[in-house]
Amino acid sequence: MADPTITDPDKYRVILENERVRVLEYRDAPGQRTSPHEHPDSVMITLSDFRRRLIGADGQTRDVDIPAVEVRWLDAQTHSGENIGETQTHVVFVELKQSAAADHGESPGPS
Amino acid sequence: MADPTITDPDKYRVILENERVRVLEYRDAPGQRTSPHEHPDSVMITLSDFRRRLIGADGQTRDVDIPAVEVRWLDAQTHSGENIGETQTHVVFVELKQSAAADHGESPGPS
Repeated sequence: MADPTITDPDKYRVILENERVRVLEYRDAPGQRTSPHEHPDSVMITLSDFRRRLIGADGQTRDVDIPAVEVRWLDAQTHSGENIGETQTHVVFVELKQSAAADHGESPGPS
Repeated sequence: MADPTITDPDKYRVILENERVRVLEYRDAPGQRTSPHEHPDSVMITLSDFRRRLIGADGQTRDVDIPAVEVRWLDAQTHSGENIGETQTHVVFVELKQSAAADHGESPGPS
């Protein structure tokens, strides 16, 4: 598991963690790039406007322009990225863990 | 279930929903208050500084001052709130659902 806090500890930091989620803050400057890393299913909340080149696990690239205060779903994926804009990137990722019930293979009871 | 999008539709809106999460945006103005409503386990991300009076299900009140870009865990709870400050409140809630595996009482497989 290429955890982004291991591959890019200067850009990713854990700001909250419990049994259900881990929340990461990401910051970079123009020209900086990340090493390939994995994200589990996550919700991404942008806190700055930014322009990035995303490089998928298959090597395909895609350029994105995303405004501040945008909320997007991120399916689990491996990728790397490069800040190709002129602004800092500032993003929060809410990473989802399996629920405690699912981890233990238990029924959560009546629903 | 006192869903905040039902009790306070002028302040809460759904900005993303799938099997694992529902994401709400909340906005209000000084002096406004919400009706009692329920939150499931959630991650709260503040997008403005604000000052609020929170009223719990037991009637206890608690005043909070929270700065912008604060990320906090919210255990499932019923409450209402009142903007007692001089600024708008702007918050995103990432509400967690049971995982699909937990909903069906199935094991998610080896972990």
